[in-house]
Amino acid sequence: MKLHTYFRSSAAYRVRIALNLKGLAPDQAFVHLRKGEQSKPPFADLNPEHLVPALEVDGPEGHHVLTQSVAIIEYLDEIHPTPALLPADALGRARVRALALAVACDIHPLDNLRVLKHLKGMGHGQEEVDGWYRHWVAVGLAALEAQLAGDRRTGRFCHGDQPGLADVLLVPQMFNARRMGCPLEDYPTLLRIDAACAGLPAFAAAAPDRQPDAEA
Amino acid sequence: MKLHTYFRSSAAYRVRIALNLKGLAPDQAFVHLRKGEQSKPPFADLNPEHLVPALEVDGPEGHHVLTQSVAIIEYLDEIHPTPALLPADALGRARVRALALAVACDIHPLDNLRVLKHLKGMGHGQEEVDGWYRHWVAVGLAALEAQLAGDRRTGRFCHGDQPGLADVLLVPQMFNARRMGCPLEDYPTLLRIDAACAGLPAFAAAAPDRQPDAEA
Repeated sequence: MKLHTYFRSSAAYRVRIALNLKGLAPDQAFVHLRKGEQSKPPFADLNPEHLVPALEVDGPEGHHVLTQSVAIIEYLDEIHPTPALLPADALGRARVRALALAVACDIHPLDNLRVLKHLKGMGHGQEEVDGWYRHWVAVGLAALEAQLAGDRRTGRFCHGDQPGLADVLLVPQMFNARRMGCPLEDYPTLLRIDAACAGLPAFAAAAPDRQPDAEA
Repeated sequence: MKLHTYFRSSAAYRVRIALNLKGLAPDQAFVHLRKGEQSKPPFADLNPEHLVPALEVDGPEGHHVLTQSVAIIEYLDEIHPTPALLPADALGRARVRALALAVACDIHPLDNLRVLKHLKGMGHGQEEVDGWYRHWVAVGLAALEAQLAGDRRTGRFCHGDQPGLADVLLVPQMFNARRMGCPLEDYPTLLRIDAACAGLPAFAAAAPDRQPDAEA
């Protein structure tokens, strides 16, 4: 396996956490997003979406390039089922996937690098772009807080007392929110879960500043 | 089961297709997005994200509200496994989920109603907002076309010759693209698959103009 990653990519950060939880350490290739390497060969040929992460896998069925962080994590969970990142019951899986997708579909896509660049291209200054970022973070985290605080299935982590897919998505989003100076005091449940995750080596070792390609 | 839906919601459209493919016909409740009903009780209490669709389910484990269209469809596929919406092999499932998430994470979230409204609030006129919409559709569909055209696992549908999760996501996105006047001639594979889906009653009956709450 080879993971194509960038230290500051939130979606790559998710996959790094999942790999660590599974005890997997694939080779890594670094794609510098700020230098635009995702849109040039060789990476652009590997993933027509020009987005990291991508995971190359070789197996009896040949060579494949997996894309989309959530699809990659579901794949890792299927081929390396222990520890499980999804609960055993269908309703629990639906809940955990919904929490994860609330980040993956309704917060992160609005705030990733290509979108912020596009807004600048439309004439918005840094302050307006930052305001856009914080707006979608606030909308999304408030909904997540309500969903987690109001459900007795929430435990030490998003679902029960073992970390899973929802936590894997939440932590990089909280990291980004902090980096962008988003106020977080209204989300005590998210802060509590984020802190519980930070105490686990699998999460800590996946942090952007711990990566080989990290920059100041 | 009760589906909370809006005829023109792309995410609700996905769930309607999946329900039809499974032969399920739950009760429906209509949430008028343009009137803002998603942000007021009773729906706002049901889903703190204020987004449709939501699926209410009652079972031996009590009453639950499922959210996030892709999580709902995975749930339906687990509890009603025939016909399967995901392939039997892990690599195939990873591919189908990635195609579906390319729509769910990287096209649709940038173009949904709340985002377009927000852009207007930032001072952009209808023409600029339409340009934003078409830009992200073009970026996303070009990547999907490349991924589908370049893979021999693509068949009559996105993955082989039976419709599945990726088709369920693709068709509402193509519908929206057409409605917004996005040029589609550069995506022959997408057009071919979209046409194959349109020939199936499960897809046709899920279309916005066929819904009880449809408006001209």
